[in-house]
Amino acid sequence: MSAPLRIAIAGLGTVGVGTVRLLAEHAPTVAARCGRPIEIVAVSARDRLRNRGCDVSMATWYDDPVTMAREADADVVVELIGGSDGVARDTVLAAIGAGRHVVTANKALLAIHGVDLARAAEAQSVHLAYEAAVAGGIPIVKALREGLAGNQVRRVYGILNGTCNYILTAMGETGRDFEDVLGEAQHLGYAEADPSFDVDGIDTGHKLALLASVAFGRPVDFGAVYMEGIRRITAMDITFAEELGYRIKLLGVAEETEHGILQRVHPCMVSQGRPIAAVDGVFNAVVVEGDYVDRSMLEGRGAGAGPTASAVVADLMDLAAGRGAPTFGVPADRLVGSPAATIDTHVGAYYVRLMVVDRPGVFADIATALRDAQVSMESILQRGHDPGETVPVVMTFHRTVEAAAKRALERIARIDAVVEPPCMIRIEAF
Amino acid sequence: MSAPLRIAIAGLGTVGVGTVRLLAEHAPTVAARCGRPIEIVAVSARDRLRNRGCDVSMATWYDDPVTMAREADADVVVELIGGSDGVARDTVLAAIGAGRHVVTANKALLAIHGVDLARAAEAQSVHLAYEAAVAGGIPIVKALREGLAGNQVRRVYGILNGTCNYILTAMGETGRDFEDVLGEAQHLGYAEADPSFDVDGIDTGHKLALLASVAFGRPVDFGAVYMEGIRRITAMDITFAEELGYRIKLLGVAEETEHGILQRVHPCMVSQGRPIAAVDGVFNAVVVEGDYVDRSMLEGRGAGAGPTASAVVADLMDLAAGRGAPTFGVPADRLVGSPAATIDTHVGAYYVRLMVVDRPGVFADIATALRDAQVSMESILQRGHDPGETVPVVMTFHRTVEAAAKRALERIARIDAVVEPPCMIRIEAF
Repeated sequence: MSAPLRIAIAGLGTVGVGTVRLLAEHAPTVAARCGRPIEIVAVSARDRLRNRGCDVSMATWYDDPVTMAREADADVVVELIGGSDGVARDTVLAAIGAGRHVVTANKALLAIHGVDLARAAEAQSVHLAYEAAVAGGIPIVKALREGLAGNQVRRVYGILNGTCNYILTAMGETGRDFEDVLGEAQHLGYAEADPSFDVDGIDTGHKLALLASVAFGRPVDFGAVYMEGIRRITAMDITFAEELGYRIKLLGVAEETEHGILQRVHPCMVSQGRPIAAVDGVFNAVVVEGDYVDRSMLEGRGAGAGPTASAVVADLMDLAAGRGAPTFGVPADRLVGSPAATIDTHVGAYYVRLMVVDRPGVFADIATALRDAQVSMESILQRGHDPGETVPVVMTFHRTVEAAAKRALERIARIDAVVEPPCMIRIEAF
Repeated sequence: MSAPLRIAIAGLGTVGVGTVRLLAEHAPTVAARCGRPIEIVAVSARDRLRNRGCDVSMATWYDDPVTMAREADADVVVELIGGSDGVARDTVLAAIGAGRHVVTANKALLAIHGVDLARAAEAQSVHLAYEAAVAGGIPIVKALREGLAGNQVRRVYGILNGTCNYILTAMGETGRDFEDVLGEAQHLGYAEADPSFDVDGIDTGHKLALLASVAFGRPVDFGAVYMEGIRRITAMDITFAEELGYRIKLLGVAEETEHGILQRVHPCMVSQGRPIAAVDGVFNAVVVEGDYVDRSMLEGRGAGAGPTASAVVADLMDLAAGRGAPTFGVPADRLVGSPAATIDTHVGAYYVRLMVVDRPGVFADIATALRDAQVSMESILQRGHDPGETVPVVMTFHRTVEAAAKRALERIARIDAVVEPPCMIRIEAF
């Protein structure tokens, strides 16, 4: 058996500790499977004295991860600090600069600086691996980069944020509203104190940008990702969706369109019969549509110590076994900056819920607004009405271009009897 | 860019032709992704003159695949002939003997001769890759061998035969019986003229044996796989399953038990809410339960030219890029022949359907049989009864050991009023 792969771990939060534990517990099988042991030679974290319930006494302690990345006698630096800039980025750059491979779980860093880091890694002939950055329990980066690499991908989409999926699932099961369920999720540790990254779709956007880069061979293009979160989804919308035969999921979708690659993150209505509609709670799922494979879906836990550590260790085992691939599937210089489409060019069906004061003439006003915007209605649903009271009116629009749907909504919003901004949710045909 | 990877293809059926087409259509991206072109230098098939709708004029033709494997100027031989012995095996052995890598879609060959072939390949320092042998559209071999390799697998199970899943799905949707739907599947080309390999569970058994070997690090052990097919499932059972909250799926399950690794293939009742219950038609799915990743499911098309070619090409791209792994995850000599458990030790719940002549005393006889076998009944269901007529009686047994359930069924079968052999289907808790 060859010499050990020596690794240095920066960051000992839940994922770091999970990684240390996995490597200790499964040392013999890990070594058998990748042909050599993996040895932790250095660690760095904020508080040296904290009891983390795992043994890192065999490793040299560094107070500063950047110094560790530069100086430790390691083949690989594992970056588990997080954040798109600052110390995480400095650590990764220092590791690459010192000729060490990098394994990271940091989606924000890669979504924003991915191409530069890939280029830096290639210049030093080291690998930059990040399976743990996207849907930890699902080996999706490897699947796109290797397992399905023979395909021309037409679309890749998925549930990429467990917090949002947990909240939407709980809202559906209990009939409770967003704020209420969010509070519970925060209490249970499923959501951060500042939930914005999750519930506003930013985390999903980061992950989508990485998947889209590998799938379409383009430079990571987080700036082109359209993002909309789940804050405005109400229990009422979930009930109406159910009645119409849909489930509401926050999806990240990257697809080839006639206007270029469109990357979009927003709540979607998906048919109840589709496999992705059944992915509930903190689970993630990613669907790849390719020209030869047709449709392949991978599902698993998106976060947590165990699944993320599993992904980190898989990357380490690849490095130990000498397996590698360019960061985004092809060398950075061969990524092609094909055109990016904007959300206005999206074509699809729409669910629209209005809160309307029920009085004569309202429907005529709505109909006129739709006609003027050249949008055609597929169905309309009004439940219970008390003259003079505010009631929900739900419509679905036939497939139309987003710009037209938006025009229709603007006109509808101006109708006096429509008392709240309309709630619009895109309906997906897949 | 480095020199091309030169390949020789043995067998130009649907998968061979799909592979030739994919490599021609996607030559530039394939080369960009694996760092070098893949070039078909030789082909062999039964009929040289047949028009296959793909161009192989650049390749040297061989009438005999074994000669080709031995003599062609190729780095890799792609074996797409099929069959566990004869010319397929000779071709693979000749390729390995000549120091060439092998890519194959041949589950029967590997299920029976896998360890010997792995050993031969290792002796020659070549790789034996077979992603296409198990669920073509799902990169499951790679997922187990690399993406989830950090885990200790507790169980791996799945829908591994699209023909059976198509038949069971169609039976459920139309209420028609097995023979009827099988005939239609044969007519549509989803089932072979001799459907035995598919419907008797043998094909699922071959694939399960391969997955179990990689998952548990044991020598492939097809002889230890318990196999039961779907011929005896009736439309009535599917209706009862639906009522009880289940779907019937033919699953292959390999799991760690206190008696050793149990490999079993049989129709299963799975709860309607579980993701695998929603995998319909010709789709396959595999679930991996590991100690760190928890549960990860991969779904996709199991067969067909496109998905299988996608898998063959993924293996070729790995070889072109210099990525490899031992055939069954660890070197053949490190596979550990841990104990194999037999189906008699299986512990689970059971669905049992009897055809009973409705007359006084029958239920007392059944109750006595159960008591004598020490099996406890969870529920019983009898729909419509006409004294003296034959009616179905459906029972579910509480979790019990298979040997006891069998004893109960033997006793029940001896009751005069029970006019057909009982139909027993295992209920899965996952």
